[in-house]
Amino acid sequence: MDHDSYARLLEISREISLLESIGKLLRWDQQTFMPPKAIDSRTEQSGMLASFLHQRIISTEMHDLLVKLTGGSGNPEENANVRELRREHERRKKVPTSLAEEMERAASTAYQRWVDARRRNSFFEFAPALKNNVLLARRWADCVGYEDEPYDALLDGSEAGLKSRDLSGLLDPLLVSLRHLLQRIENAPCRPDASILRRPLPSEPLLQFTRQVAGDMGFDFTVGRLDAMPASMCFGMNMSDVRISAAYNPDNPIDCLLATVHEVGHGLYHQGLDPRHRGTPMGKGVSLGVHEAQARWWENFVVRSGEFWEHYLPKLRAACPGVIDDVSLEDFVFALNAVVPSPIRVEADEVTYNLHIMVRVELERPLINGVIDVDDLPSLWNEKMKQYLGVCPKNDSLGVLQDVHWSQGLFGYFPTYVLGNTYAAQLDNKLRGDLHGVATEIRSGQFLPLLNWMRQHVHRYGSLFPPRELIRHVTGAEPNERYLVDYLNRKYERLYSLTPQVADAA
Amino acid sequence: MDHDSYARLLEISREISLLESIGKLLRWDQQTFMPPKAIDSRTEQSGMLASFLHQRIISTEMHDLLVKLTGGSGNPEENANVRELRREHERRKKVPTSLAEEMERAASTAYQRWVDARRRNSFFEFAPALKNNVLLARRWADCVGYEDEPYDALLDGSEAGLKSRDLSGLLDPLLVSLRHLLQRIENAPCRPDASILRRPLPSEPLLQFTRQVAGDMGFDFTVGRLDAMPASMCFGMNMSDVRISAAYNPDNPIDCLLATVHEVGHGLYHQGLDPRHRGTPMGKGVSLGVHEAQARWWENFVVRSGEFWEHYLPKLRAACPGVIDDVSLEDFVFALNAVVPSPIRVEADEVTYNLHIMVRVELERPLINGVIDVDDLPSLWNEKMKQYLGVCPKNDSLGVLQDVHWSQGLFGYFPTYVLGNTYAAQLDNKLRGDLHGVATEIRSGQFLPLLNWMRQHVHRYGSLFPPRELIRHVTGAEPNERYLVDYLNRKYERLYSLTPQVADAA
Repeated sequence: MDHDSYARLLEISREISLLESIGKLLRWDQQTFMPPKAIDSRTEQSGMLASFLHQRIISTEMHDLLVKLTGGSGNPEENANVRELRREHERRKKVPTSLAEEMERAASTAYQRWVDARRRNSFFEFAPALKNNVLLARRWADCVGYEDEPYDALLDGSEAGLKSRDLSGLLDPLLVSLRHLLQRIENAPCRPDASILRRPLPSEPLLQFTRQVAGDMGFDFTVGRLDAMPASMCFGMNMSDVRISAAYNPDNPIDCLLATVHEVGHGLYHQGLDPRHRGTPMGKGVSLGVHEAQARWWENFVVRSGEFWEHYLPKLRAACPGVIDDVSLEDFVFALNAVVPSPIRVEADEVTYNLHIMVRVELERPLINGVIDVDDLPSLWNEKMKQYLGVCPKNDSLGVLQDVHWSQGLFGYFPTYVLGNTYAAQLDNKLRGDLHGVATEIRSGQFLPLLNWMRQHVHRYGSLFPPRELIRHVTGAEPNERYLVDYLNRKYERLYSLTPQVADAA
Repeated sequence: MDHDSYARLLEISREISLLESIGKLLRWDQQTFMPPKAIDSRTEQSGMLASFLHQRIISTEMHDLLVKLTGGSGNPEENANVRELRREHERRKKVPTSLAEEMERAASTAYQRWVDARRRNSFFEFAPALKNNVLLARRWADCVGYEDEPYDALLDGSEAGLKSRDLSGLLDPLLVSLRHLLQRIENAPCRPDASILRRPLPSEPLLQFTRQVAGDMGFDFTVGRLDAMPASMCFGMNMSDVRISAAYNPDNPIDCLLATVHEVGHGLYHQGLDPRHRGTPMGKGVSLGVHEAQARWWENFVVRSGEFWEHYLPKLRAACPGVIDDVSLEDFVFALNAVVPSPIRVEADEVTYNLHIMVRVELERPLINGVIDVDDLPSLWNEKMKQYLGVCPKNDSLGVLQDVHWSQGLFGYFPTYVLGNTYAAQLDNKLRGDLHGVATEIRSGQFLPLLNWMRQHVHRYGSLFPPRELIRHVTGAEPNERYLVDYLNRKYERLYSLTPQVADAA
């Protein structure tokens, strides 16, 4: 390895990383504090930064350094940094800077249109901006190139190397298993009292409680913050600046906790990265899929578990006196895990959640591939919802307009939630094999051993391994959906008193 | 005028302006929402932007364009843009980019040190960072150059063309007049009941009231915001993103309003700029002095006036029931204008305020000129306070550590407050000559005619005239301190029932 070239490459990497982090701050600010009519200047700012960023990545200097570093070295960390920077350089160099800038500007504008359109329940208002995003994404795909179909170029941006056909290989069998489980649940001898979740837990104490849980999980407030905001999200500017927002919905108060611990899961990944590698790929989460695995794992495998509530239900009762005093632990946990097909993804249970993703993938894939048009989306959305979940949203705000992703030009992002669910199950399986008494730790609100396992086996690796390799390295098995199916079958058989099906749980 | 060159110059100007606005957002965020340990990455981000900004301004392209545009044109707006960009280019080109970046980084770090040092009342903790800021400011002055003394190089950065000797010409006679007025007030037959100001107006309703006043003044919340924060400030990222924060001090609640309307004054100047000139000098406030004039004018000439409270005292009583119901309009206004030498600048009355500035100027001038050292500041501060105001701060937090400016490397900023006071008085004199019934408008909470006058005579000009020329153009007289002295004499003679002194009021 040419040490001077490598050192210079890392310098550029740190510059790129700083530009990215400033760009994230602009976006965070746009979604939180920016005055509404500052949107035009914000779009200019974001566009300029995107252009700087792109120019840095595709620069001749970067190219020359990567050529000099072709041979690799004996150091796997160095190789990983070079590999990831090369990957980004190779992808981006086919894209003109003007397109990179235009996509950022379009996303900035479209986000604002989406906010307004959703508030006014008017897909029509959002459609032109979305069409623009789609056109730009197609142009990006054409520049970057693909083997089978344009959508693959975008998938690859979310999860390195992921292709539509691999995705089908994952989603199709998962779909079969989930539909079967769903049917069994619908015929179950018992069902939860889901009205428990609509009890009016007041926002301020609930937020305090959520904050306490985040702290117990290990979230470090000296390098992060957690605020009440209209939408739940996590912005990890870098490993020392992670901002989480918690949204309160009076129709489903406890979702404030669930949505927030999901975001805290992302935050813990950011905070668990190795500071030695700050500003380089080794100091970044390796993929959206692995990021979602962290988020979904905390949300579902930890916080939706019965053990969690053995410790926290008394605390929640105390925080919100008089609201759920009469609710038993068993009833509360059952309600929290009620399988109820509903129109909203972020509030979905663990079984139907993946069906929500199917709907989105089956729309954005033909959208990007030019098979369907933006104007077709509202009716197709409702059809697919009917087909997969048996429900139809009351209006577009609760349907096709519910998610922020497309407004920000994020096509190919949704599949990473399913990947995350499967990775999470596979990691959980390994974690419970490695550690003794995980249930006992959760029962006593002691998450440090769990977090440490994740830090040691996932976070600290940064981008050392590509995502699927990471899962293989950590768990000793090929990434696959069976762990998720087994976990869901076991969990819901117990909750819904289903007769275990040996064939499914094999 | 070479039109292509001019068009390209404006493009660069807009880029510079975007970089500045992103830099301001980073600083706003650092002072509001940034997690404390994100400081290192923030310093990297700010330093990088400062370096980009400096490189753009000193670029060969900029130089070449300015050479081509040497002749000027028949269009005064174009000439003003070229003049101001040339001025900045000429100053900056003598400064290495590394120094510009280092100053930004030092300011970012020193601000954080100052926050901690002030909280812990430990000047010692802040001293090393301040020494660094001073050294860098001296290096900057040496690069930029000066005729008489290094401090002039920094003054010129705050108010174009201002020199220490001009400043003395302004401050010395002002000092004589103010000391005389102060002495007369100390011997006055009556004095206000200042304890009224310590009545516990509760924070939330007071903030709401302040927000309402800001709206009445004409502050546009679609391109700005006003939040409760630990310190009062105004960040004008650009004309469509102006962020004001309001601090509440339980020992002096009404100061929340006064400090905030000051910041709203800055904000209205930003919002009143001509959108046609966005991103160019013509679309910027011309100087810190003129900016302070706007802020001090609203704060003192409007909100501290008896007329203002004829309209708003009943509203404040209603907003905070039971706290000041028994206080008469006369007593309230007298208390609000009580002349009481105290250690804190931002809470000072209009007479002693200027003495606070003297203290600072007489310390930062020798500091930058290398005559005194940072370690001498605490004792010299207390000496000067004793000398000018007859008070000694209880500790350094209430003394030499009270102001944020030096932590941010802002030397030569303080004099612009006095300039602002003198400009404000001169503008006020003209405004009341031009408009009929200003007192009546204020009495009915109608500020639009006043704001429109300011927009028409000050804001819309942007940087068309250099600051002193602007004042001359608008008022028809050379900028001078007599308007301020006359105004203060008249105001305090009435409030304190002093015998008018014809010699002073001439």
